[in-house]
Amino acid sequence: MNFSTILYEKADGVLTVTLNRPEKLNAYNHLMMTELIQAFDAADADDDVKAVIVTGAGRAFCAGADISGGSETFNFDKRADKTALGSPVREDGSIDYSHAAVRDNGGKVSLRVFDCLKPVIAAINGPAVGIGITMALPMDMRLASTNAKIGFPFTLRGIVPEAASSWFLPRIVGIGTALEWCMTGKILTADEALEAGLLRSIHAPEDLLPAARALAADIAKAAPVSVTLTRQMLWRGLTMAEPMDAHRIDSRGVYARGRMQDTKEGVTAFLEKRPATFSDRVSSDMPDFFPWWDERSYS
Amino acid sequence: MNFSTILYEKADGVLTVTLNRPEKLNAYNHLMMTELIQAFDAADADDDVKAVIVTGAGRAFCAGADISGGSETFNFDKRADKTALGSPVREDGSIDYSHAAVRDNGGKVSLRVFDCLKPVIAAINGPAVGIGITMALPMDMRLASTNAKIGFPFTLRGIVPEAASSWFLPRIVGIGTALEWCMTGKILTADEALEAGLLRSIHAPEDLLPAARALAADIAKAAPVSVTLTRQMLWRGLTMAEPMDAHRIDSRGVYARGRMQDTKEGVTAFLEKRPATFSDRVSSDMPDFFPWWDERSYS
Amino acid sequence: MNFSTILYEKADGVLTVTLNRPEKLNAYNHLMMTELIQAFDAADADDDVKAVIVTGAGRAFCAGADISGGSETFNFDKRADKTALGSPVREDGSIDYSHAAVRDNGGKVSLRVFDCLKPVIAAINGPAVGIGITMALPMDMRLASTNAKIGFPFTLRGIVPEAASSWFLPRIVGIGTALEWCMTGKILTADEALEAGLLRSIHAPEDLLPAARALAADIAKAAPVSVTLTRQMLWRGLTMAEPMDAHRIDSRGVYARGRMQDTKEGVTAFLEKRPATFSDRVSSDMPDFFPWWDERSYS
Repeated sequence: MNFSTILYEKADGVLTVTLNRPEKLNAYNHLMMTELIQAFDAADADDDVKAVIVTGAGRAFCAGADISGGSETFNFDKRADKTALGSPVREDGSIDYSHAAVRDNGGKVSLRVFDCLKPVIAAINGPAVGIGITMALPMDMRLASTNAKIGFPFTLRGIVPEAASSWFLPRIVGIGTALEWCMTGKILTADEALEAGLLRSIHAPEDLLPAARALAADIAKAAPVSVTLTRQMLWRGLTMAEPMDAHRIDSRGVYARGRMQDTKEGVTAFLEKRPATFSDRVSSDMPDFFPWWDERSYS
Repeated sequence: MNFSTILYEKADGVLTVTLNRPEKLNAYNHLMMTELIQAFDAADADDDVKAVIVTGAGRAFCAGADISGGSETFNFDKRADKTALGSPVREDGSIDYSHAAVRDNGGKVSLRVFDCLKPVIAAINGPAVGIGITMALPMDMRLASTNAKIGFPFTLRGIVPEAASSWFLPRIVGIGTALEWCMTGKILTADEALEAGLLRSIHAPEDLLPAARALAADIAKAAPVSVTLTRQMLWRGLTMAEPMDAHRIDSRGVYARGRMQDTKEGVTAFLEKRPATFSDRVSSDMPDFFPWWDERSYS
Repeated sequence: MNFSTILYEKADGVLTVTLNRPEKLNAYNHLMMTELIQAFDAADADDDVKAVIVTGAGRAFCAGADISGGSETFNFDKRADKTALGSPVREDGSIDYSHAAVRDNGGKVSLRVFDCLKPVIAAINGPAVGIGITMALPMDMRLASTNAKIGFPFTLRGIVPEAASSWFLPRIVGIGTALEWCMTGKILTADEALEAGLLRSIHAPEDLLPAARALAADIAKAAPVSVTLTRQMLWRGLTMAEPMDAHRIDSRGVYARGRMQDTKEGVTAFLEKRPATFSDRVSSDMPDFFPWWDERSYS
């Protein structure tokens, strides 16, 4: 696939998506948003993709929103891409908050990652700031290079945390740490981010992608349909009020999968002490109760 | 009480339930499910039980579902216990997911533990895999021997996480760790599980049960009705959307308990610097607002 | 402002509220509840207050509810302040749990802190027990002196956790730790509380307030309207079921703030590599969608 702001490379069952505006420290813009969503759509549709790695070209992961346009960067009323969607400002000057143009562009990507059918591994090779880190919060695991610097500097710019980070960040690092990071906007070292649980592991720069690939390869040994179900069961488990809600879903999962070829093979291979070879495919063999949730629309 | 797959032993106000199929590494089967539920029912009804310890006989805690039946273990349509409940498969081949036979047998135990009136301490003496560890997630504290090995290998067998673990596990170890453990299915050492917060503490094999008993004895000093209320208040606190929901419940708890004998004794004993002797009983003295939740039924 | 049980002191944009009944180890009583609520009301209305620090006078932070009245302390039917609200006990002896007199007095303060428009930092200078620590759970960050001793001894007195702590505590320290602390009632050292994530950091006694002030000063550099929005976005993020719920709110925040003076200044200052000078005020410039939540009333 051909993109302008990202690279899309498949090898050994793993898709690597590389944010690729190195001269801008991979700063996030409207086209990158569009291309990232297209890349995740393609990954979901492709049975050869067992896992996705997201990393950055050059010395940064992503320096945040591209603010080279200056002081009106976050003023959507004055932006070039405003015209496509029209304005949510009514004649009397009030704002129609249900208007599509109000929707935060960072959130469109983070919600797309949240919905992804394949595991997503962030390989944070350098600075990850603003949307550069909030887009990584719905990724399943975050590995980082010792060169990583991380920051949530929204309040220092006069805006607010975005990309649904107010839902993700307190659940990942705890509410106290999330509040401190977002209210001070301070820049964190990789060690601080590891300590707080934002990162899974830290690696020497040259070891980062190999470590991400090794993790992806471990996941690729499992039954892909089970991995897809599991990814959504655990994330959606966090959206569920009660254990009974989860019991309703996992009962369906155990029942439906227990009748399928993969489970027979999985149990037999275990009893025979050999690796399993799974044949069910995400593109065609998801149980009919999937997806089980009602996606709430934006308004 | 007489059971086939578990031992039920009371001493010093503590019930010890021992998974007892050591020749099968205490593998979980339909009878063990039934007997565990009966044991928790008995514990709830018995004022002499101030806390419950769950452990395993022999070298394992529980090796998971008993798959000695082979490749159709998880295919409920082909299992011996199918006939009792009938089949959820309709004539046209579609599945009636609201049928009772769809209900995951692991979840029946974990939801029973969740509802328990007494504190539950897992003493994980050896391997705990699959349902062997997911049944322990609704237990209040998990102590382990250095011999413990823990795994969530569902995706390696072609099935999915069960026993409502998609609700419990991300809330205990965090979403990233839960995803990695469940998507790779890897086997964890006790140290890894401790580091991630799945375990409270690790002990030499011979120190495990004494440590669990010491913890149970500490809890047994507190007012039993208060402990029962507290157990459900904290777990149900996780199911509540807002602090105001908790305020409504704890207001009732403080008010109702403040008029009862135990609180007068608790305050007086504290002022007199002596141990309290509590007389209110779980069997007869729970405040009338308990339980305050509407249990959702399975469907 | 003049209070009897607390001190209210402003300096350098920071309000310090000091619990001030040192001869009673700052034990919590009805008047302290009233005055704390008044202090937070004043802080919210005052643009000169960029952050709030709460600490204790003398050697304690707060020893808990004042139980010097003896065994009927928690029996509201026999308390002096009962008459103001009347009794929830009906003629037939049953309890009207929706009656205002049932409302836990600790929860009134903790819910007020939860709603606060300004960041709140607890500087725990000594023992913090019962309501002395549960009132600090909705504070954003908890710093402690090495002299701090912390306990949740409710079950040892025959009552139950209060101040909505069943919502806050498991979300801060994890469900297993919360259960153990509340079911045993044991006294924790500052080190234990730090390890569990209840505390952000531990300091020598003489360094505690300077550390709290340094943290407050860091937050005070950020845009106040953004800080107020961020505080509520992250706390309310924990009350939201789904990421889409957060996306709806942060989209409004980015849109509304992006048109305001602060964001232009924030971006410009960043590009010019100079500190920003923010002019939007919490008292007059909160976006019109704030507050976005429906507060549930007590009943």
